[in-house]
Amino acid sequence: MSSEEPFVLRPIGHVESALVDPRAAPKQASEGAPQAWLVIDPAVGEGLRDLRAGDEVLVLTWLHRARRDVLAVHPRDDPAASEAGVFSTRSADRPNPIGIHRTQIVATDGLRILVSHLEAVDGTPIVDLKPVLGR
Amino acid sequence: MSSEEPFVLRPIGHVESALVDPRAAPKQASEGAPQAWLVIDPAVGEGLRDLRAGDEVLVLTWLHRARRDVLAVHPRDDPAASEAGVFSTRSADRPNPIGIHRTQIVATDGLRILVSHLEAVDGTPIVDLKPVLGR
Repeated sequence: MSSEEPFVLRPIGHVESALVDPRAAPKQASEGAPQAWLVIDPAVGEGLRDLRAGDEVLVLTWLHRARRDVLAVHPRDDPAASEAGVFSTRSADRPNPIGIHRTQIVATDGLRILVSHLEAVDGTPIVDLKPVLGR
Repeated sequence: MSSEEPFVLRPIGHVESALVDPRAAPKQASEGAPQAWLVIDPAVGEGLRDLRAGDEVLVLTWLHRARRDVLAVHPRDDPAASEAGVFSTRSADRPNPIGIHRTQIVATDGLRILVSHLEAVDGTPIVDLKPVLGR
């Protein structure tokens, strides 16, 4: 049985990026997303201690500009494409707008982590970092 | 600048599984996790309409039994292992206990989706489903 209570995410940091316009952001990192800084809050800094340059990581973000009342979208914002159920797409618009971004650590500087590519816009809240597992 | 306001996740469904004891659950699905049903709420059922048997999906869960005040853990609950910062591990215990489970759809039955393997215990809330992208 699922619990009916809501679950509250607390940002652990935010994205610092030259990308500022969501409409100009690539849909996927493989389409030319720039390097970006992950700026992590001191309160959770201890959790970073084993991250190193070269590590592949999943960055989980909260896509704070997304619409949560949308259940079908035109994939890739292309009005000519047939609508698809949101759970078959990576659309930001969805009931719980969590973004998952696979990237690689280029460098670390205390609470700041430079990653090789990230399609999230400047200011996007970060909610988790996980290692990429080997499969 | 990151927003300071909290973000509220709303469960979109829950896991129905023979796994009931978190201590008995495999750490990763590749270690013998069983088939499981994803039971989705009618309110978001429209978002499922393009999911088909054979699709590879990421199931995002809220690991509701996790501790959120933990920043370093013994990997794989092995007390002999050195502690590691949580962001270098897939530990359920972390500031925002979101689980990411890669699996494959075996069958769909309306609002119920059978997946090939899932390491989450019975009753775990589901917060999102995303397609696996080709990379």
